[in-house]
Amino acid sequence: MPEKTLHLTAFMRPVSLHTGAWRYPGAYPDANFNLTHLKSFIKKLEDAKFDAFFMADHLAVLNMPVEALKRSHTVTSFEPFTLLSALSVVTEKIGLAATASTTYDEPYHIARRFASLDHLSSGRAAWNIVTTGNPESAKNFGLDAHVEHADRYKRAREFYDVVTGLWDSFADDAFIRDQETGIYFDPEKLHVLDHKGDDLKVRGPLNIARPVQGWPVIVQAGQSEPGKQLAAETAEAVFCSPRDLESAKALYADIKGRAVAAGRDRNHLKILPAAFIVVGDSVEEARAKRLKLDSLVHYDSAIASLSIALGTDASGFDPDGPLPTDIPETNASKTGRAGVLKLAEDEKLTVRQLAQRYGGYSGLAFVGTPESIAEEMSVWLDEEGADGFTVVFPFLPQGLDDVVQRLVPELQRRGIFRQDYEGTTLREHLGLPRPNNRFFS
Amino acid sequence: MPEKTLHLTAFMRPVSLHTGAWRYPGAYPDANFNLTHLKSFIKKLEDAKFDAFFMADHLAVLNMPVEALKRSHTVTSFEPFTLLSALSVVTEKIGLAATASTTYDEPYHIARRFASLDHLSSGRAAWNIVTTGNPESAKNFGLDAHVEHADRYKRAREFYDVVTGLWDSFADDAFIRDQETGIYFDPEKLHVLDHKGDDLKVRGPLNIARPVQGWPVIVQAGQSEPGKQLAAETAEAVFCSPRDLESAKALYADIKGRAVAAGRDRNHLKILPAAFIVVGDSVEEARAKRLKLDSLVHYDSAIASLSIALGTDASGFDPDGPLPTDIPETNASKTGRAGVLKLAEDEKLTVRQLAQRYGGYSGLAFVGTPESIAEEMSVWLDEEGADGFTVVFPFLPQGLDDVVQRLVPELQRRGIFRQDYEGTTLREHLGLPRPNNRFFS
Repeated sequence: MPEKTLHLTAFMRPVSLHTGAWRYPGAYPDANFNLTHLKSFIKKLEDAKFDAFFMADHLAVLNMPVEALKRSHTVTSFEPFTLLSALSVVTEKIGLAATASTTYDEPYHIARRFASLDHLSSGRAAWNIVTTGNPESAKNFGLDAHVEHADRYKRAREFYDVVTGLWDSFADDAFIRDQETGIYFDPEKLHVLDHKGDDLKVRGPLNIARPVQGWPVIVQAGQSEPGKQLAAETAEAVFCSPRDLESAKALYADIKGRAVAAGRDRNHLKILPAAFIVVGDSVEEARAKRLKLDSLVHYDSAIASLSIALGTDASGFDPDGPLPTDIPETNASKTGRAGVLKLAEDEKLTVRQLAQRYGGYSGLAFVGTPESIAEEMSVWLDEEGADGFTVVFPFLPQGLDDVVQRLVPELQRRGIFRQDYEGTTLREHLGLPRPNNRFFS
Repeated sequence: MPEKTLHLTAFMRPVSLHTGAWRYPGAYPDANFNLTHLKSFIKKLEDAKFDAFFMADHLAVLNMPVEALKRSHTVTSFEPFTLLSALSVVTEKIGLAATASTTYDEPYHIARRFASLDHLSSGRAAWNIVTTGNPESAKNFGLDAHVEHADRYKRAREFYDVVTGLWDSFADDAFIRDQETGIYFDPEKLHVLDHKGDDLKVRGPLNIARPVQGWPVIVQAGQSEPGKQLAAETAEAVFCSPRDLESAKALYADIKGRAVAAGRDRNHLKILPAAFIVVGDSVEEARAKRLKLDSLVHYDSAIASLSIALGTDASGFDPDGPLPTDIPETNASKTGRAGVLKLAEDEKLTVRQLAQRYGGYSGLAFVGTPESIAEEMSVWLDEEGADGFTVVFPFLPQGLDDVVQRLVPELQRRGIFRQDYEGTTLREHLGLPRPNNRFFS
């Protein structure tokens, strides 16, 4: 094996981020919300030795115009802890990453649920810490307006301290269960946190044994300044969305540098950009699949996305013509606009196709053959753009099958992805140390 | 079958309420916190056609002197939603009742988790509404003192309205998922709750389809005045703890009467007292098992329980002698005191045995042969003391095996318990109607 190998997690809520995914020929239209399908997906991902199954989360029905909303396959979904607990029973090794909000939940609940999931799964839980950026959520939790960004991140940092402190309530060897003497646990090995901070006051102890992994793996996705800083200080895996290798390398260096500055080992934080993967027999076939998928995005909602990306109203353009050359320049979105113009030129897309790309999924994509995609991933790994990827599937089941049956074997052949799990916990899959208990060493 | 039959639910958090349970010969000392054991228990309960597996909950390590705490098998437990979701995968019919607090949680979270569990389990979820009476919990949620009783019940009532309203966010037939037209759901069948009340402000809609059961079954356990009123207005099953048939009949008539006064059908609310069951080949053998179990309760914590029951300090009494006859009468606990005196006389118990009874489990108990217990249960059913029971096991696995292998067949032989499930949802097991959607009829 080469020195460096990839980590792969699967972005599974929704099971595809592409808004047209559920309409693709052969796709399960209810893939997000059908336990039988979800069980089969996670078993395939485990057979392919993926590090983890990753669930994003939203605490609201996302606010969008009704014309787009009624076409969205994300409007009904399982809640992460209930789904991952159910899926833990049908799997043995794959990690289970749940998103939980530090803004609209309580640290005692969060610490307890992740500890419970970690015990149920024998050490496979991960907590994706989010501060919940969607303003609609506030209205479901008694507030009129969203909590301010800086306040959310300040609370998140303290919340992390409280949750990890609660996980350390019991020493790893606190439970004796001596039937003869009647001693169930050693009270010297129970710590009362008694946290009193700016935003949180939590006494403890937690009413559950220390998690199998010590602490579930910490995941973070923020790309704002406070987000990157929180990730550098606390995260062990970072979910991010760079658009290309150059910006990925800059982000990678930035976050790893901050982690080192915070006194951490740079290898104990894995950078895992989201990558939309479409596999074909040829690059042309893969591209054709993608165009077919994009074509399933409704034009009315698609054109709105293109207008945003261009910084100008595109609804008057000829859908079946090329992008007009006389689009007025605006300051609002220079980078986005440049990206659209480059894409239009590179792939020779009509206005409709461009709109459907932006309305479907416009993030980082690897579209090609197993060989070409494996080569790209290898370059990202070598050049420190990524320690692995958070795979976004185009449609299911076929798009997932293509990855696990065709791309993964190619990655294994090149020696940059595991042939089998070496350990049993998610920390072991990711090469992360088990944290010491801060109260009992 | 006779006109009336019993409903049986299993009290499973902790798996035994008896403090000495984990020390009984042959008992699993970690029964509460071992997924393999819990899977086997729920499968046995389902084979015996129990209505539901019931999980109480605590949002704290219970406050008790360290001498008692270190002997408690309840100090580490799985969180209810994660455990029940895992257990839903290994079962098909048995109901899954989780306790969730209206005082220390948010209605959007609660509505969502129960809806998710109901979908994962194909219609088997129940919500045991509690207001969380344990003052230690407040300290884990940022408060110094517990929320006042009346305020807790006022919020609980409003909380119920919000949660059920959120469950009704989508019409049952809202999801079309038409791949051809691209319409995922009919927006006319989505309702925004927009609740603004005294204690809660929640916009909605919920981001999950209406539960399979319409609403998960509502369970309530309060026996205070506001508790009984809340149960009468909202509950479909009541978990209660009458000490004998006479008090059970009074409670049964009281709650059913309140339900009728609130405009409900008295058959749509099932009264299920907790019953501790010890089965033997003879009544004497069953009693001997119970004495053996009681003897495993540590005397120091046991004597404190007896002192509370007597309303006087019992620590100076001779542990191996009979209860002194000259105990000063107090006003503090006349009923409790009379119960102790009667028990001492009926079963000729020493001070130590009495103490261990009160320190172990002193609620309603059926201790005898399968025939004698079935007969007692039949009387309770006929005389309207109960619509069934919430079974408390003395120790596990044997005490559970005795119930499912010996008592249940006797109940079935008498025709007062089902031979098989007739439906698939918990509502169907309990004979409860599926609620209409208040916004879409």
